[in-house]
Amino acid sequence: MEMIQNITNVRGIKCWGLHSGVKSMRRDLGFIYSEVPASVAATFTKNEVVAEPIKLCRELIKGGKAQAIVINAGNANACTGEQGMAGAKAMVKTMSEELKIPEELVLVASTGLIGEPFPTESIVKGIREGVLKLSNKTSAGSFLANAILTTDTFAKEGFAQFDIGDTTINMGGVAKGSGMIHPNMGTMLSFIATDIAIEPELLQQTVQECVDASFNMITVDGDSSTNDMCAVMANGMAENEMISSKKDPGYADFKKTLQELMIHLAKLIVSDGEGASKFIEYKVSHARSIEEARKLVRSISNSNLVKTAMYGRDPNWGRILAAAGNAGVPFDYTLADLYLGTIDSNVKVLEKGTPQDYDTYFMKKVLRESHITVHLDLGVGEAEAMGWGADLSTDYVVFNSVYTT
Amino acid sequence: MEMIQNITNVRGIKCWGLHSGVKSMRRDLGFIYSEVPASVAATFTKNEVVAEPIKLCRELIKGGKAQAIVINAGNANACTGEQGMAGAKAMVKTMSEELKIPEELVLVASTGLIGEPFPTESIVKGIREGVLKLSNKTSAGSFLANAILTTDTFAKEGFAQFDIGDTTINMGGVAKGSGMIHPNMGTMLSFIATDIAIEPELLQQTVQECVDASFNMITVDGDSSTNDMCAVMANGMAENEMISSKKDPGYADFKKTLQELMIHLAKLIVSDGEGASKFIEYKVSHARSIEEARKLVRSISNSNLVKTAMYGRDPNWGRILAAAGNAGVPFDYTLADLYLGTIDSNVKVLEKGTPQDYDTYFMKKVLRESHITVHLDLGVGEAEAMGWGADLSTDYVVFNSVYTT
Repeated sequence: MEMIQNITNVRGIKCWGLHSGVKSMRRDLGFIYSEVPASVAATFTKNEVVAEPIKLCRELIKGGKAQAIVINAGNANACTGEQGMAGAKAMVKTMSEELKIPEELVLVASTGLIGEPFPTESIVKGIREGVLKLSNKTSAGSFLANAILTTDTFAKEGFAQFDIGDTTINMGGVAKGSGMIHPNMGTMLSFIATDIAIEPELLQQTVQECVDASFNMITVDGDSSTNDMCAVMANGMAENEMISSKKDPGYADFKKTLQELMIHLAKLIVSDGEGASKFIEYKVSHARSIEEARKLVRSISNSNLVKTAMYGRDPNWGRILAAAGNAGVPFDYTLADLYLGTIDSNVKVLEKGTPQDYDTYFMKKVLRESHITVHLDLGVGEAEAMGWGADLSTDYVVFNSVYTT
Repeated sequence: MEMIQNITNVRGIKCWGLHSGVKSMRRDLGFIYSEVPASVAATFTKNEVVAEPIKLCRELIKGGKAQAIVINAGNANACTGEQGMAGAKAMVKTMSEELKIPEELVLVASTGLIGEPFPTESIVKGIREGVLKLSNKTSAGSFLANAILTTDTFAKEGFAQFDIGDTTINMGGVAKGSGMIHPNMGTMLSFIATDIAIEPELLQQTVQECVDASFNMITVDGDSSTNDMCAVMANGMAENEMISSKKDPGYADFKKTLQELMIHLAKLIVSDGEGASKFIEYKVSHARSIEEARKLVRSISNSNLVKTAMYGRDPNWGRILAAAGNAGVPFDYTLADLYLGTIDSNVKVLEKGTPQDYDTYFMKKVLRESHITVHLDLGVGEAEAMGWGADLSTDYVVFNSVYTT
């Protein structure tokens, strides 16, 4: 029997997920609770149009501490004005009352339809019910992971451990993808809990850096939503010596593990991209800087022409070079090597910008795979970046167009 | 009988287009010749990967004078290295010899496949043949317009006139769209000739400003190619008093007319977008600056989610707001009005960020049209921008994916 581990395996973390009635027949309200106040850090959407809960959380997060997160699905609480803000505040207040913790320690998130009146009453009722059921059982973590979904086709969970001296640090998280639902945008959400002891300022910096290398390097649509959010609570219940500097013992392993967990969740989101037929891993290596490498990865992975070529199993290196040339960073293709491949094989398509005579039969085999790798070696520096994306299929267009009229 | 006017109606301009053998069965080599040297200005692709003829033209254009342009279709002469550069130079040299004009007065452009050996021999032979046939007949202009096409489904021409005092100024142009062809990228090309007398420096500034308001505001793929180019020759044969300042008589009308001609050609390109089922005109009004308005137009018109909604006839204002919020400029949707409509009717969907009760039956009718308008009124300033784009259809994906394997 395999032991499934998830966010509830983090010391002091309890979860739940239930059906509050906003969505039909599915869990739509999730909870994460820490037995003690935790250091908290979060990143939010860069969209200028932000949902009401994001506005609240941006303020709450400044205190650097949190003890509970409540997330509803089915209504994004965006473009809802005063009624929506009152609803978000009611969620916080109800959590605070039921859990007997200060309002300043409650984060709130929403995902679902934009511009619909916020169903405050059902959700407040659901919170009263849910708080009573908070549990550290694995199934409670899975209920949470399911409760935050919208058009996702599967729940996204992850768990990781590492040691600081004799102390095992646990880390678990959930996420949901950027699915689109009528009439409006879905959202990328991720919530992670860990029992490490770490100062909030350092946690914030670490979370930002890890998000930049994971969630910010995936693309399904190229658009970021009004509700995107990633929050990490670190409750210190592992009782390691408080980490307050990047030089402290365990910090490097913490960051590495957090980044791996986020990349794991980010990849799950891409895998569940609407209408996607392929998962594509992009690598840009030997760049002058990480920033330039990341810009190149994003420009290539966001190109509709590259994405349709991948869907069409077309080794179309010209589109990849042209997308790289559009990244807004200096790019000399005559120094670059390009490889297309799968997890365990690579075909060199270009060497120093010159087309290579590869085995076209083998290339066809490669491009029939559902997991493709694209590796552009710039040959000019030492920096490297990775990113993940889906192809652009006819199903994507159908999914995102044909549900109203 | 309607008199068709085109680029050959510009004083001193002769054209031709013929089949040189690079493409099968279609004209693939075009010529524009001015009887006297002209002021010339051009804008080029911002892609870091540029074709060989672009490298040549960037240098040639510095002299501010040109007398002939030769354009081949079928081979982009990009990623072709020394062999390609030699081919581009051979095109210039042959034009120079046959026309008996200095090499410094010949521009060259290419469109078609990337990374294929350049067919210098056929093209040089074609040039020798074509120069003998240069003509100021309307049909010769149409042969040119047809010779520069790749996957375009129709030739794109335009002609305009205005007066400076008693002098009529003529202006005509051709363009081709950003079609994608296996295995690589197509290109946006436009060539315009006018008989106005204007200094090269002022012409360059004017062309850049007009391109920013026209060709740079259209989107089919969101990618710019290795070969994009727009060149304008002004040969002065109208014999107006030389224009050297924006304050000179006739300048304002010249700029307005040039911009209108470019917008006309740009719209034709969008109309011919691969797999497009709708033509969409975007307007952002009452912005703080033109730059911000343009960024917003581009962000909305490039959004795959907006484009699929248009394809799906979905009045999905949430996606439009979210795309606006992603433009990287301050955007307060609670001040914004949003309209969806056709050429002659508008439906207010949002007022100051609040959804309006519109007639859904009428909206369905609007969104069935093939020409849709999207107007976002920011309500914060006085600047305005327009842009034009296509929807994202299943046909687009099929067209751009299924021709290799």
